[in-house]
Amino acid sequence: MSRVRVHNFSVSLDGFGTGEGQSAEAPFGHAGSRLHEWFFLTRTFRAMQGKEGGTAGVDEAMAGAWRAGIGAEIMGRNKFGPQRGPWQDHEWKGWWGPNPPFHTPVFVLTHHPRPSVEMEGGTVFHFVEADPAEALRQAREAAGGLDVRIGGGPSTVRAFLEADLIDELHVVVVPIVLGRGVRLWDGLDGLEDRFRIESVTTPSGVTHVTMSRT
Amino acid sequence: MSRVRVHNFSVSLDGFGTGEGQSAEAPFGHAGSRLHEWFFLTRTFRAMQGKEGGTAGVDEAMAGAWRAGIGAEIMGRNKFGPQRGPWQDHEWKGWWGPNPPFHTPVFVLTHHPRPSVEMEGGTVFHFVEADPAEALRQAREAAGGLDVRIGGGPSTVRAFLEADLIDELHVVVVPIVLGRGVRLWDGLDGLEDRFRIESVTTPSGVTHVTMSRT
Repeated sequence: MSRVRVHNFSVSLDGFGTGEGQSAEAPFGHAGSRLHEWFFLTRTFRAMQGKEGGTAGVDEAMAGAWRAGIGAEIMGRNKFGPQRGPWQDHEWKGWWGPNPPFHTPVFVLTHHPRPSVEMEGGTVFHFVEADPAEALRQAREAAGGLDVRIGGGPSTVRAFLEADLIDELHVVVVPIVLGRGVRLWDGLDGLEDRFRIESVTTPSGVTHVTMSRT
Repeated sequence: MSRVRVHNFSVSLDGFGTGEGQSAEAPFGHAGSRLHEWFFLTRTFRAMQGKEGGTAGVDEAMAGAWRAGIGAEIMGRNKFGPQRGPWQDHEWKGWWGPNPPFHTPVFVLTHHPRPSVEMEGGTVFHFVEADPAEALRQAREAAGGLDVRIGGGPSTVRAFLEADLIDELHVVVVPIVLGRGVRLWDGLDGLEDRFRIESVTTPSGVTHVTMSRT
């Protein structure tokens, strides 16, 4: 049965999944790299950059689980890029270069649909105006029986949690305070009742919280 | 040198230190007991209730550190009780019965000062209208060279963090989502820069985050 999964989603102690003031130079706004230092050290991230080495402990084990069994991703428009409103720059093709790490269809939620963009390595960005259930229907169809990843950002993960469409949620609590940005947890009072929850802290100082549907 | 310490301060994943709708029957409002289940299981808490038994692991080790070396506590008015505005019920003497667990002077921050209340066992509630620095000055004087505990609630801990008056902060992140209430972390962007930070998860599922002044 195809599952809906979130992986490697970092939040601050105050629950922000990204900072304020996103721009082409600062995908996470004023948060900079603070939410993802743990991830940058892993083999999984370094391999995405074409580099060798990296940590091989629990952070890596968790980070590396993001790809197996995934047939499509859904992401919010702000994960795809910093543009707001009607698309001005059609040359923007995401933060990930010509060969993005997804290698599957990726459904970008937007109120401004545009033609699909085919990248190297199997990633195809589709731009869809749809609520979570409809976006998931399309992604499942494209995933060919495999799982669907909800890639973020926080508003998108939250929308899918509100719609109770997530089966597995991996959140990484980073012991920093961002103060402003976009919160993950708003409106999700009692979320814990819907999941089996595990937490583990690693030597990098982060806490991996996994919630899986009971 | 006298230190300023916070112990056993539970927050939800979304950063709430208490829920919404405090009343005499619900000190933590709609949060109920969800933030403190880990604490209720410890020997330290059970001993406060005059009971035997309880957990003896890391939760207990952390919980039990709250008393040693403390000469006074400062708490917000909402930790003391559910009344707001001018005191209507002078018979209210806190949630803790005739012999509260503090056994030291306790300074209750309020815009409505009233005469001190002496309890059994050495606890004396003083009601002071003061900013954090002045309240700390008074508490330090009463503590006779010992440390001062900032007892909560979240607004009070936050005010002392904003004023950079905390030396040791022990926060317990509980993997629940409260959705509403009073947040601990608001306005504290970059707090991590002022502290050495450690995190450890325990089998109860909570994460103890300790911040000590570098």
